[in-house]
Amino acid sequence: MSKRPLILVTNDDGITAPGIRKLIQLMNSIGDVVVAAPDSPQSGMGHAITVDATLTFNKVKIDDGPQTEYQCSGTPADCVKMAVRLALDRKPDLCVSGINHGSNSSVNVIYSGTMSAAVEAGVEGIPAIGFSLCDYSLDANFEHLDEEILSITKNVLENGIPEGVVLNVNFPKTENKFKGIKICRQAKGNWEETFDKRESPTGKEYYWLSGKFVNHDKGEDTDEWALENDYVSIVPVQYDLTAYHAIQNLNSWDL
Amino acid sequence: MSKRPLILVTNDDGITAPGIRKLIQLMNSIGDVVVAAPDSPQSGMGHAITVDATLTFNKVKIDDGPQTEYQCSGTPADCVKMAVRLALDRKPDLCVSGINHGSNSSVNVIYSGTMSAAVEAGVEGIPAIGFSLCDYSLDANFEHLDEEILSITKNVLENGIPEGVVLNVNFPKTENKFKGIKICRQAKGNWEETFDKRESPTGKEYYWLSGKFVNHDKGEDTDEWALENDYVSIVPVQYDLTAYHAIQNLNSWDL
Repeated sequence: MSKRPLILVTNDDGITAPGIRKLIQLMNSIGDVVVAAPDSPQSGMGHAITVDATLTFNKVKIDDGPQTEYQCSGTPADCVKMAVRLALDRKPDLCVSGINHGSNSSVNVIYSGTMSAAVEAGVEGIPAIGFSLCDYSLDANFEHLDEEILSITKNVLENGIPEGVVLNVNFPKTENKFKGIKICRQAKGNWEETFDKRESPTGKEYYWLSGKFVNHDKGEDTDEWALENDYVSIVPVQYDLTAYHAIQNLNSWDL
Repeated sequence: MSKRPLILVTNDDGITAPGIRKLIQLMNSIGDVVVAAPDSPQSGMGHAITVDATLTFNKVKIDDGPQTEYQCSGTPADCVKMAVRLALDRKPDLCVSGINHGSNSSVNVIYSGTMSAAVEAGVEGIPAIGFSLCDYSLDANFEHLDEEILSITKNVLENGIPEGVVLNVNFPKTENKFKGIKICRQAKGNWEETFDKRESPTGKEYYWLSGKFVNHDKGEDTDEWALENDYVSIVPVQYDLTAYHAIQNLNSWDL
């Protein structure tokens, strides 16, 4: 690519989260960066959009970097929509989302604000990558991810991504050096929720959602296997949700 | 099925919306019904879940029907999770979501609270169907959908649904009699947004998200084609988002 690429950066943890600040710093070394990110944390927002409330979208300056930044009152998907329509004078060459504080492997992809921003960019025809580190703590260490993020990003800029596909990249939480980068499928798994029941000072019952992820998939070609074995996982994710393999079966129904 | 099936009913328009009241009435004719639905409209919530706020889940009585009902302060996906853990003593035989006031065809499926509830049920191993009527008005007419809803529901109870698949059923807005029911793929399309900029009384800028859906797909096997031609569309939807066809291409990258 002869001229510097235009890169849109977003996330779901909010514009001041350490993960996005690291990603902005890395993208500044590759291209011209525009940031459009939520003004507050939006974890677990899935592909929510704001249809029944107003939105704000304001230019802000957060550090001394060369990037242009906007903070948005909406969801990650709103951020991408607003950036495309209000902040960018041409379609960006790439959208990167993250680095998320926590895993978006396996079924987590469907709850993920980080990945919904990437998918929204994909729907807009923009090559897109979501980056997540399997460490939920706010002081997670993002310092050792540079090489892999730059390598994956440069590959996307040079090779493009097949139409209708975005990349879901997860980094394992490990003290070891990464063993490599693996292209994976999404592991079968689900969350076994528990609801922690409490009582308000006025005697009203309320709950906190909690739970643990359970991997039901023994496959060695899955993102869960890769992450457990110190590999960085990349799952190509599509937003044509049609289960083509089920069409023939359904056509045999007496409807 | 010898005994009456246990059916979980939910939606994203809120527990008092005409669409869910109609669906409850129909399901009461087939099985034992438990309702768990949002206490306020949750349209466009995608697959959001509530991770950083408390939730309420309260038994309510809304009409004289035999069903048991709970209203939940969370998203459609939260409703399904809470129903499964707090309200049901066994896994239901079916989850139906809707009837949504508005289309969930084509790319709308990724923004849809109605479909996220169905997908959440699918992840829990419950056969699930989302029903939507392509009419956004709150006084939309749901009276002519009975035959098709009952037929599709009975087929699911008798035949099951392939593992990892849920059904996305859309009804056209038409004055004509439906021509039939078609198994379809998700049409390629996107929303071209416009942001309506306004100013608050104190001079602060804000926006309303608006826009129009654009169908980029001429295929006669799509949900958009079926709906435009007065057919009811059924798209089998999967939540394994892996783009398997892209894995080989990505494996050729120099990572």
